Amino acid sequence: MNKNINMEILASLCKRRGFIFQSSELYGGINGFWDYGPLGSELKRNIKDAWWKAMVRSREDVVGLDATIIMHPAIWKASGHADGFADPMVDCKDCRKRFRADQLCEEQGKQLIKEGSTFTLPEGTVCPACGSKNLTAPRSFNLMFKTYVGPVEDDSAVAWLRPETAQAIFAQFNNIYATARQKVPFGVAQTGKSFRNEINPRNYTFRSREFEQMELEFFIPPDEAVELLCGHVATLADNPDLAGAPQPDWGWEVWHRYWVEQRLAFYRAIGLPEADLHLYWQTGDELAHYARACVDIEYAFPFGIQELEGIAARSDFDLTQHQKHSGKSMEVFDEALKNAAKAKTPDELAAFRAKTVAAWTARGKTAEDADAFLDKLLEGKYVPHVIEPSAGTDRLALALLCNAYDEETLTDAKGKTDTRTVLRFSPAIAPIKAGVFPLVKNKPELYAKAREIFARLQRRWNCFWDEAGAIGRRYRRMDEAGTPWCVTVDFQTLEDGTVTLRERDSMTQERITLDALVAKLDEAIG
Amino acid sequence: MNKNINMEILASLCKRRGFIFQSSELYGGINGFWDYGPLGSELKRNIKDAWWKAMVRSREDVVGLDATIIMHPAIWKASGHADGFADPMVDCKDCRKRFRADQLCEEQGKQLIKEGSTFTLPEGTVCPACGSKNLTAPRSFNLMFKTYVGPVEDDSAVAWLRPETAQAIFAQFNNIYATARQKVPFGVAQTGKSFRNEINPRNYTFRSREFEQMELEFFIPPDEAVELLCGHVATLADNPDLAGAPQPDWGWEVWHRYWVEQRLAFYRAIGLPEADLHLYWQTGDELAHYARACVDIEYAFPFGIQELEGIAARSDFDLTQHQKHSGKSMEVFDEALKNAAKAKTPDELAAFRAKTVAAWTARGKTAEDADAFLDKLLEGKYVPHVIEPSAGTDRLALALLCNAYDEETLTDAKGKTDTRTVLRFSPAIAPIKAGVFPLVKNKPELYAKAREIFARLQRRWNCFWDEAGAIGRRYRRMDEAGTPWCVTVDFQTLEDGTVTLRERDSMTQERITLDALVAKLDEAIG
Repeated sequence: MNKNINMEILASLCKRRGFIFQSSELYGGINGFWDYGPLGSELKRNIKDAWWKAMVRSREDVVGLDATIIMHPAIWKASGHADGFADPMVDCKDCRKRFRADQLCEEQGKQLIKEGSTFTLPEGTVCPACGSKNLTAPRSFNLMFKTYVGPVEDDSAVAWLRPETAQAIFAQFNNIYATARQKVPFGVAQTGKSFRNEINPRNYTFRSREFEQMELEFFIPPDEAVELLCGHVATLADNPDLAGAPQPDWGWEVWHRYWVEQRLAFYRAIGLPEADLHLYWQTGDELAHYARACVDIEYAFPFGIQELEGIAARSDFDLTQHQKHSGKSMEVFDEALKNAAKAKTPDELAAFRAKTVAAWTARGKTAEDADAFLDKLLEGKYVPHVIEPSAGTDRLALALLCNAYDEETLTDAKGKTDTRTVLRFSPAIAPIKAGVFPLVKNKPELYAKAREIFARLQRRWNCFWDEAGAIGRRYRRMDEAGTPWCVTVDFQTLEDGTVTLRERDSMTQERITLDALVAKLDEAIG
Repeated sequence: MNKNINMEILASLCKRRGFIFQSSELYGGINGFWDYGPLGSELKRNIKDAWWKAMVRSREDVVGLDATIIMHPAIWKASGHADGFADPMVDCKDCRKRFRADQLCEEQGKQLIKEGSTFTLPEGTVCPACGSKNLTAPRSFNLMFKTYVGPVEDDSAVAWLRPETAQAIFAQFNNIYATARQKVPFGVAQTGKSFRNEINPRNYTFRSREFEQMELEFFIPPDEAVELLCGHVATLADNPDLAGAPQPDWGWEVWHRYWVEQRLAFYRAIGLPEADLHLYWQTGDELAHYARACVDIEYAFPFGIQELEGIAARSDFDLTQHQKHSGKSMEVFDEALKNAAKAKTPDELAAFRAKTVAAWTARGKTAEDADAFLDKLLEGKYVPHVIEPSAGTDRLALALLCNAYDEETLTDAKGKTDTRTVLRFSPAIAPIKAGVFPLVKNKPELYAKAREIFARLQRRWNCFWDEAGAIGRRYRRMDEAGTPWCVTVDFQTLEDGTVTLRERDSMTQERITLDALVAKLDEAIG
């Protein structure tokens, strides 16, 4: 269910309850930067932990990396970011404001004209600030933040804040491959801050200048290696079991779809409803020249259906670029592949070569490139291909907040109505798992019992102690924080050890023993 | 026990086993930046999780924050970093190399001469690179990395990468105080990357240009408020119970020592031996003018006894600076304090005022400042003071690696000797908690049983599956990774469900049921 939430009301709740503050608000703020407060920082930690658990710790074929934000500038030359990671922008010559040309056109119901790498504004575009038509032609603006490493500010000292975490994985591929006891197919995962100097940050935290990513680079063999090893390459037409264990005969197409399904399952598991998740398949024109396929997992935000994650089949483009720029081999060697090639007859090899060259030239590559690739491949060597599921942590936090937000009209026994604000977070990502309340403050025995129960739950889960005000008001405060359960310790607790467990969404209450409560939380949260 | 470890051997193991790689090594590296590989990223996660659990989730009086690295530049003006966060550096006029003046002197057994903010090299200082005496006078070099926010590179767009995480906590104090349902005393904790453009990064990862911090700002009332509320201020001379719950009558001195003890307990709990931890109390000259006290917790690294964490009593300096620069009040209001002041007789108040003014002027403050403070205080208002335990995540990771590293000479039954390399990590921070091995690969029933046991342990803990080579070699691989336990599934497992549990440090083996194994890990890891 896609609720029509007013983003201003959500932002107001986020500030009031300590989820999200504007960065540097004390000094008037800084555009495109957001801080996560006490509840927000717990929410974000839970999201990252859930991702790391699903992508790294519960898998045997993925390992982690934690690389620096500032890296050698040659990395951005190899990746293409130094030259190509730019947005077209225009200046208003009258009011001197600056805008992203594509957004400007879009907002005025027009489309920016692109010819090669040259952009032109369509007729009649005006400055959104002052209405002037006196705009400059669009010019490229690199989105990477620049800095200088070392004490001298000259060109040789220029470095960039990473605009994505992915490149560190490629740059460290050889070190990881040599040490991680993994064979292709395997993946490397990383979470961390990235920076893009967006001209017009917008949609609350959705498009920020500093943001956090959760990226996986999953390395697979080229299809030609699979064919040599398995005699065939499984495609989606073979109807592979994507929910089962990955198979050695999977080609890139199956691997790509496998990761789309894995990631959709992740989003569902942390509470985003299937109906609000959309897949957008990039078409031929939109795809980067090296990409085989790219699908965006989108969420129906109140401000539109927008990307949460992109899952791209990037061929061997990235590692090959680093191989070219560094002059160091990024190939892996597979003994079984070499043996499989050796076992072929000369006729079989000739047919395989001819088929491969034909397929490569059909994709616009040269026969020479295909031959060079095949020469290596038959020796058991290749540059791995990669599937890249790349997610935005802040976008996901925002989607989860939008999805969780609800206002409910309650009518009491006397017919009086009241509005309840509630964040319906899934237990796994809720910042606080349980509120623990002593029914009254002034009964030492009851108070001590409540403290004891709080201490037991707190050892494993983030809990909140609240002894102020009526129980009903304490429930409401926990509802606004998205806490799934409230545990009240009352006089009956002293008699039979049971507590009152109140469930956030249904508002039902039940009496439950402490052991049953612990088992319930264990099952729901893990 | 401080072992005399060769740092090159440790760095070599760290690279070979995927703990630490040089950033951008593929392109010749970048000085002062380090990446954490598969084992290193797990180690670092575990350190940060242990800190967050100890400092935030297991306390009711501390909440979290996750702020941006780039903030409004006014924050660094208020904090003093824009003007004062600088190192003196000298250039060699002959070889054109640049050095930190204080390190240069220290390495040559001299001391840099400081008069006010002017530095002079002592007689006879030479260039460590070429031996020339032709050095420039020391000049200030700001250690903050500079960047530009927005599309225009001019002075109005300059921003800095934070050199510490602490300032965000001060800048967001009002937002947090308004939303977190906390009263002073309470703390705000944050972990995250910080950046210092060190002239000479050194000692492996110890002094890096990009590093991670774990900082707590714990806000306390000024002693004068405690005196009004409690009638007296507890000091260390009162022999307070620092291991028990904090008390309302604690003055800053007790709070400061309390945090020193808390932090020492944390380091011991994650495996650093008491004997290798040292306290260094900064003396009058070393203390910043606003600081009441500062203690460094140091660890005996192979390259010397060096700081892991500084714990400073910073008075109300930070919040007062932000109050001055932002023009916004950073005061809190305490109804009970106001009432306590009201309950005093005029004579009592006069005596309190006289005593406070005398104490302030004795500390070099003016009577006017003391009066202004007292006028607010008697209305129940004050700017909180702060105790700041500030730890370096990378330094701690390095200390844990140094402490864990061991080489052991083993002699087998035939008298043959062999060297075992082992990382003796505590279970809580070990990257892998258990290796799980099927004794043999080719018995499907045994293999399936091992898989089942692996899946059960993997649900809660990071485990490693290894089926290659002799069991003895698999043990050794886990020893080098610092894995505390190895679980071997053998033929007897199929009969009675027990496994062989091998302990890393003692190398003893025992047969144990799966339930007992789970209980053992649960107790040791949590």
